[in-house]
Parts: sequence; structure tokens; C-alpha cells
Amino acid sequence: MSSAMVKKWRSSRQVLRFGWQSLLDLRSDRGSIFRATSGFMNGCVEKSKLHERFNENQNIRFYSCFRPVTEYRSSQRSLGIRQYKLFGSSASKIQRNPTFSSLDSDDVSYFKEILGEKNVIQDEERLETANTDWMHKYKGFSKLMLLPRSTEEVSRILQFCNGRRLAVVPQGGNTGLVGGSVPVFDEVIINVSLMNKVLSFDEVSGILVCEAGCILENLVSFLDTKGFVMPLDLGAKGSCQIGGNVSTNAGGLRLIRYGSLHGTVLGLEAVLADGKVLDMLGTLRKDNTGYDLKHLFIGSEGSLGVVTKVSILTPPKMSSVNLAFLACQDYLSCQKLLVEAKRNLGEILSAFEFLDDKSMELVVKHLDGVRNPLPSSSEKFYILIETTGSDDNYDREKLEAFLLRSLEKGLVSDGVIAQDINQASSFWRIREGITEALQKAGAVYKYDLSLPVEQIYNLVEDMRARMGDVANVVGYGHLGDGNLHLNISARKYDDEIVSLIEPYVYEWTAKHRGSISAEHGLGLMKAKEIFYSKSPESVGLMASIKKMMDPKGILNPYKVLPQSLFSL
Amino acid sequence: MSSAMVKKWRSSRQVLRFGWQSLLDLRSDRGSIFRATSGFMNGCVEKSKLHERFNENQNIRFYSCFRPVTEYRSSQRSLGIRQYKLFGSSASKIQRNPTFSSLDSDDVSYFKEILGEKNVIQDEERLETANTDWMHKYKGFSKLMLLPRSTEEVSRILQFCNGRRLAVVPQGGNTGLVGGSVPVFDEVIINVSLMNKVLSFDEVSGILVCEAGCILENLVSFLDTKGFVMPLDLGAKGSCQIGGNVSTNAGGLRLIRYGSLHGTVLGLEAVLADGKVLDMLGTLRKDNTGYDLKHLFIGSEGSLGVVTKVSILTPPKMSSVNLAFLACQDYLSCQKLLVEAKRNLGEILSAFEFLDDKSMELVVKHLDGVRNPLPSSSEKFYILIETTGSDDNYDREKLEAFLLRSLEKGLVSDGVIAQDINQASSFWRIREGITEALQKAGAVYKYDLSLPVEQIYNLVEDMRARMGDVANVVGYGHLGDGNLHLNISARKYDDEIVSLIEPYVYEWTAKHRGSISAEHGLGLMKAKEIFYSKSPESVGLMASIKKMMDPKGILNPYKVLPQSLFSL
Repeated sequence: MSSAMVKKWRSSRQVLRFGWQSLLDLRSDRGSIFRATSGFMNGCVEKSKLHERFNENQNIRFYSCFRPVTEYRSSQRSLGIRQYKLFGSSASKIQRNPTFSSLDSDDVSYFKEILGEKNVIQDEERLETANTDWMHKYKGFSKLMLLPRSTEEVSRILQFCNGRRLAVVPQGGNTGLVGGSVPVFDEVIINVSLMNKVLSFDEVSGILVCEAGCILENLVSFLDTKGFVMPLDLGAKGSCQIGGNVSTNAGGLRLIRYGSLHGTVLGLEAVLADGKVLDMLGTLRKDNTGYDLKHLFIGSEGSLGVVTKVSILTPPKMSSVNLAFLACQDYLSCQKLLVEAKRNLGEILSAFEFLDDKSMELVVKHLDGVRNPLPSSSEKFYILIETTGSDDNYDREKLEAFLLRSLEKGLVSDGVIAQDINQASSFWRIREGITEALQKAGAVYKYDLSLPVEQIYNLVEDMRARMGDVANVVGYGHLGDGNLHLNISARKYDDEIVSLIEPYVYEWTAKHRGSISAEHGLGLMKAKEIFYSKSPESVGLMASIKKMMDPKGILNPYKVLPQSLFSL
Repeated sequence: MSSAMVKKWRSSRQVLRFGWQSLLDLRSDRGSIFRATSGFMNGCVEKSKLHERFNENQNIRFYSCFRPVTEYRSSQRSLGIRQYKLFGSSASKIQRNPTFSSLDSDDVSYFKEILGEKNVIQDEERLETANTDWMHKYKGFSKLMLLPRSTEEVSRILQFCNGRRLAVVPQGGNTGLVGGSVPVFDEVIINVSLMNKVLSFDEVSGILVCEAGCILENLVSFLDTKGFVMPLDLGAKGSCQIGGNVSTNAGGLRLIRYGSLHGTVLGLEAVLADGKVLDMLGTLRKDNTGYDLKHLFIGSEGSLGVVTKVSILTPPKMSSVNLAFLACQDYLSCQKLLVEAKRNLGEILSAFEFLDDKSMELVVKHLDGVRNPLPSSSEKFYILIETTGSDDNYDREKLEAFLLRSLEKGLVSDGVIAQDINQASSFWRIREGITEALQKAGAVYKYDLSLPVEQIYNLVEDMRARMGDVANVVGYGHLGDGNLHLNISARKYDDEIVSLIEPYVYEWTAKHRGSISAEHGLGLMKAKEIFYSKSPESVGLMASIKKMMDPKGILNPYKVLPQSLFSL
């Protein structure tokens, strides 16, 4: 890359800000396509593509959402793929906990008394929506949704339900991807949407305190007026709620930069199964007084308590964004480049994505108008590096200097910096288009895994050797986060191909201390698969904690932990 | 501040690196004086000063450690200050748990069998050291210290002790400041010092996996050769061990930059009370498979399990450091400056310290050779801003530009950037010298509190109004972390002064959702005070977790939680 090639993206700050927003909208791989395509459910071919892209990027691993549902069902059954079960087939393996009571009219009367008539929902249409996840993959049969307006109301609901042994499902925006936010049977839905107030914002510390039902995008907008951003950003931000984000430990767009919610959430309020309110709503960066209980509620998917308030540290908004598209000759160079990028761009690095040559081939072959920006290179790997910082001049020069050094060191063999928003979008299109290209290429088996960075491509190569001529194995993903999208492309779906892949891929992941669920939790979909990623002793302790904190098991039953651990 | 005043600190990179190290050594307020003054226990006047400084900065709030111990004891008794009790007086209120067994010769034989003769310590001199904390404030009466070399040995020890109801104290470097790492009565000491191997380091991801007994400074040195740093740095780093750091959720020097251990620790291995080994030693940034149990062990001070291995994300080493000393006319300007610094220096900001004019007056009056670098200013507040980044040219220019803008906006009324290491040291000397100056000024009542940033100076002013002419109230601290050092200086120690301060200061802190222990935990010293910072429901749940995970209560008894919660 000559210095002439290192061209500057000389847009004005305003255009850059707009550009940043555009990038978010375009970057379906980190989910934002959802907002940009809120009407996609009405689409057809376009809908399929977008839906598929969104799903892929949300780490959902079912490949046929863009087929007619009936076809999907039958293909699932014939393939017998465990984790791809629709609700119907999952439910057949799950038994309703017989110790739970069934709702009666006295219960409903009581709820009307404490919540008022209009916040006790029995309307069939509204219940249909609340019983169904947005993918239409899971469907429960709840006859009642409650809409509390305060922590006290949540507390009174749970106190009553616990006394009556009525099971409940806490629900926010219902954008979960593993069936965690909808009932399995007749659980009462406690939807916290009406608890949507910002309670305080400290412009000095950047600490936001709000109720659980605040929609993420509303918080983003609120903070924008204050010059801050949420430390997490998700495709579902137009619908998902902060209480649900915390309960699922949502990752998303900004994790590489700001870390997980375990680091940014400073405090919580949660209501326990028996209605007790746990006030852990601290707003301090330093507080070492006893066990830090809030972490139990971050990522436990509502199975230990209903999160009602959240205190979160928000970072200041940054004004400059730059994007580079690079070629590397081998995976070792990609790893070294990541090390160098962390060291030299450390403070401003906001994305480090990779794709292999097989991914590039697919995209160029199957997607209209997509071309390799480095056509003369015949390298095996491509890297996208994005920086986000507080000073555009400094940041851009820093990126350019870094890339020149990387070229001199031989880590990068070719590369280009986006000169404008269109070019940046075209770079992202390559990375984002892979799933669409894969879909066009035939049947595709998708796996999204967390692995140690040095192991990531070993799995791709092992799998490639294992599959031989049977299928085309491609690897790409969020290298900076250790997140691999492993995709296996074949002409058609086939039992034999599945048996070559599974359980091998899970065992491989487990053997290398990887995770079978990087960021979406276990929910109903993967509760039984927990042992692939956690030791029996750890799962045993989780079950003990669940039993201690929710002895009657009323909070979000059948989720997170295998049902077999709980005697019914 | 004219542009001429904004002088550049044009040292070579090597000198800067050296300078950074020097700053660490000088910055007792963040603890590093400990390493620089390892011989201070043999000093006299000098010892007193240093000891006092170290203590103050480690958030210990006893004022008379620099008096002869006998005088200290009597002054404590006459004042009746709760939290200032020596071990002797504390112990009188704590009853040995009568359900615990006493060690017998068969026990010792068993331990010799599993650990070998030389790792079962009964030597009186070695036991004396292990029974006593480094402040000589707490002293236990253990007759046995065990030195396991592996997780399996720790497991066998605990399995045996749990069966026999022998209480244990997990111990690392024994540098704790709240009496958490020494026995209270005759607990068996399990010291993990021999478990000191680095197990792996991933140069791509920066993830270090090591045993719990690794000394922090050894890890720092190891990482230095790899071009990385530990995300935490403490004054006690020459002695403290990573297992203890994790168990106490140690904060220290780098918290403002890299966050707490809840964010940087990726995985743990811990042995439970019954000897069960809990493998949570993940090395992934993203893993949402079940409850994130490791957080229970971060900051629980060895009361839920013995941490045996740690996986931690380490950031790349940075090469450039700059320091500015500024004057602000009011506390609101300090807050605004913090906001601006976070926004404009966000990526490189590594310290944001403040002191008030009363602090400056004391330092200039009582310390030889210290002068106000901004003598013409008559402002009420002074701020130190340090940046640490990857590119000295860019970072320095960024700081200079930021300071000029702040001056133009009127947030800063005067300021200077250190031109060399000596000037940087002289700036830090002011901030560090406050406690020494306070000690020279007479008796001093010390409180280290975490508070919302906007409240910090309200407490100082409230306390100033409350004390009237009785005492001089000064405020300073780590503004960027929300950490206040509240110091009340009087001619002599006096019951009436204490009764003016307490429990008012704790109640004030609690009312504003502050913390009475920012980073050192509760240990023995503050176990009873937990209710000032945590709700009864939270403490109740902590006790339930403790009872569930350690039903016989053998792990570090009498610490963290009030003894009254556990029926004996």
C-alpha cells in the first residue's frame, strides 16, 4: 500500500456523523439492519435476505427461516438437528411442572385489584403476540399478561404468584433469540414495558439510572442529547428493553470497545421470586462491601429475579470514524495484525473483522455489484479495521501510520482506506453479504462460536479436512471478540452431513474451552446444551442457586438450566 | 494559560518510560510508596510519615498508626471509635465459633501425608508472620500454615477440613488492609504462595492464565517482556498475589482506565468449602451459557471459595505519558472539566485527581520545598490530569489542545504541563503530600468514601459547616473514580469531635448511595458496618449464599458479613 493509496476520508464532521449512523444501519452483522428494515416482515425476496442476514448476525443458527414454515418444520424433523427444534418439537420433550397451579378467576381478580383493569391483559390478540417470539419459532399458551407500572407492583405480583405457585415469564421487548422471553406453557407474562422512565442522569460521571422497560433506542436518543452513548448497541434496539438486555447480558456492536455489561452495569434493582425487592442500585465505580450480587442477575435470563431498574456507566460520544479493508496472506498474520492494532490503535479500535478467501469468492460470485476492493491480491484472508475516536485528524493519521507500518512489516500485503461513506458501505457489504451469498450457494449449516483467537481458524481447517468434497467450509467473524461464524455450505440438507458436523463441532468447541453461546444465552433452545460449555460442578452450583433463590421454580421455568436438574 | 505556557514534555521515549515508573513510585496516594519504601518499618519519623501516607492512600482510616502502639490502644479506647479498633478490642466482641473443631496431631499427620513434611508449617516464627497482617493491626493464633502446590492439594485440604469442621483462612501475600487475610482465632492458614506458575499467555488476545499465588509484580514483569500490562496496579504489588487481588476485587492505579476486575477477569478456578473444584477458567470475551459464577468469587474475600487459578484480559503496554496541573474556580468547573476530559481525552485519560485550596494551603505550609505551581492563582480547586497513550506526539498535542479549549471555555483559570520528569514529580508531590501535611498539622480524622461525583464536595462543605471552628475540613481524591478522601484536621483527638463526625459521615454516605469501602473490602474490620452500604435484603441474600456454599462456615469465618447473621 503506497502512501498514495492511503487516502483520507475527508468528510466534514457532520457528514462523518451521518456516515457513522449509516454504517450502523448497514452493518447487519452486528444487528442494526433490524432497525433499518422494520417493515421487512412484509417483504418477499428482500425480506428473506434481510431476515437471514439479521438472524445470522444475531448468532441464530437456523438456516431456513426464509423458507416457508411448513417446509422448515419438516426439514428440521427429518434432519433431527437438536438445537434447531421448533417449539412444537421442543415442547414434546418438556413436561409442564405439575407442581404449578393453573390460573383461575380469583387470580385475575386479584391482579386487577393491584394493577387496575387495563393493565391485566386477557385480550387474545395481544396475548398471541406476547406468547410468540419475533422469529415465530417459539409459542406459549399464556392466558394472562400483566403490565406493572412500578417495582412495588412487580413485587406484589411475584409475592402472590409465589404463594399460589403460578409460574411467570418476565418479558421486555421480546426480542430474545433462544426462546427465553416467551412462555412454554401457561406461565403468566410479566411485561415491564410500562416501567420506562429515565430516573436520573449524571452528566459528570455519565451514569444513567432508568427503569427496566426503557427501550434501548430511547436511551440512545436520550443520551445523544447529553453527548453520551450507551455502551451496548444491538440490532433490536428499536424494540429491546434495557432490563432484558441486562437479563440476557446482551453483547452486540460495542463490546470490543466498552466490554460486557458485567463491567458497565453499576447497579440493579431486582424483584426476587417471593416478591422481595433487592436494592443493588449503586451508582459507584468502586464499592467493595460484600458479595457483588448484581452479577447474578446479569445474564441469568430472568430465572433468578425480575430486573426492575438499571444503573449503567455510559461513555461519551465520539465524533470520528475510519475504515480500512486489508489483505493478509495467512491466519498468523491476521493474529499478529490484531495484536498490533490493539497496541497501536488500542484506544480507538472499534472493529476488527475477518473473512477468508472462500467467503470472498462466495460474495463476489453470488452478490450483484460486489467486487473485491483488492482485486490484484490473491491472499487467503481479509480484515476490516474500524476506528472510532474523539479527534478525526489524529485518529485518521494514526490509522494511516499504523497501516503503513503493518505493510512494511509484511503483516498486510495490500489495503485501502475508505475515502467516503459509499466506499465504507461497499467494504461492509462484503462482510455483511457473506450469509446472503451462502444462502444463494445452497444449503448452509451455521455455527456461531466463541473460541480462543489462536484456535479460531484451526476449527475451520479441521472442519474443512473433515468435510472433504462433501461441502464448502467458510470462516469469518468478529476476530477482535474471538467470535467465529463457521458456515458449512452444501448442495442440500442431508443427515449424513449433519452427522459429520455434530457433535464434532460442539466437542471441538468444548475441548478448546469455547462457548456454544457467545452472547444470546441459553433460553429454552439451549438449556440442555449447557454442559458443552460449563462443567458439571458449575452447573450444579447454578442449580443450587436457582433452588435457593426460587425454591418453587416459578421464575421463567424450563429455561437456562436443564429441566432434569430439578425434580418436579 | 498562554500557548507559551503549554510547554511540551520533550523527553525521549526511554526517559518517558522511566518517568512513568518513577511516577508510580512517587504516587503513594495510589499505593506505590509501599514498594519504594519496603524498609520503612525500620524508620522512625520517616517511617511514620510514609506509613501514614500509605495508609491514608490505601483507604485505611486509623490515624494513629504512627504513634506508639500503647498510646494508640489507649487513645482508641478512650475515643470509643468503632471502626478504629485494634484486633484486641475487636476480638473481645467476636466469639469463636464453638462448632469448629480444634486442631490435633492426627490432623497434622494427615496434612503431612498429602502435602509433604516441609509444606506443613508449625515453625513459630513463620506462623507469627502469617498470623499478623502487615500493619500489625490484626493478629490471630493459628498453629498451622499449609502450603499446597496444586489445586488438587487445596481440594484435599478443604475436603478434610470441612469433614473435620476445621476453620481455614485463605492467604496470599497477606497485604490486605481490613484484617481479611489473617486468622482471628486458630483457623488453619492455607497459603497459596507456592502455586505461582504462569500457565499460558495468548499474545494475540492478551489473555493470561496463571495460578493464584503469582505475585502481581512478577506478572507485570512477565507481561512487560510480551509488551502487555496488568489491568491493575497496586502499591503492594511486590508482595500481593493475583488470587488475593481477585478475592478482594483490588482496584488501584489503573481502575479509571481499565475498569474493575469484574470486567477484566475472564475466568477463575476456585475450590469450594467441601473441596469441590469449580472450573470456570474460561478465556473468552463472550460466553453466555448460564449464570456467570466467577463474579461470586471476585470480592468475596475467600469466604465462598479459595481462588486457585485466574484468567485475565491484559491490555497492551502504552508508551507515552503526560501530566498537567490546573486551577479551577469552583467545584462545578471541576465536574465540567471531568466531563470534557472524558469526552476529549477519553481514550488516553489515565488520571483525574482533585484537591481543594485548604489542601494546597496545608501542603505549602507544612512540607519543605513544595510550592504551588500556579502561585498567582487564588482558586479554590486544583486538578491533575494524566494521559497515557500509544503515540506520544498525538497524545501530547491532544492534551495541549484540550487544555487550551478548557481555558477558553473558562473551566480552567490557569495551568501548566510538566516539562520533564522532575516537574511531573513535583506536581504529584503536592497531591501525595497532603496526608503528610495533615499529619504535621495535628490530629486528623480520615474517611475514604465512594460517592456520586456531583455529591463529593457537598459532603466536604456540609462537614465544614458542621465542624465550624472546631476543625479544618479538607477534601481531595480520585475524582475520576468518584473517590473522596475526606480529612478533618484538629489540634487533638477528642470524643466530641468524633461524635460530630460519626455516624453523620456514614449516614451521609449511605443517604447518597455511597460506599464505606471503595476497594478494600470489609474483612474483619468492617464486617459489621456492611449495612451502611448494602440493604438488609442484599445482606440477607449474601448470608444465604454463604450458608449454601459453606454450610459449616469454615471459609474465612468472622469476615465480610456480620457474625450475627450466622447462628453458632
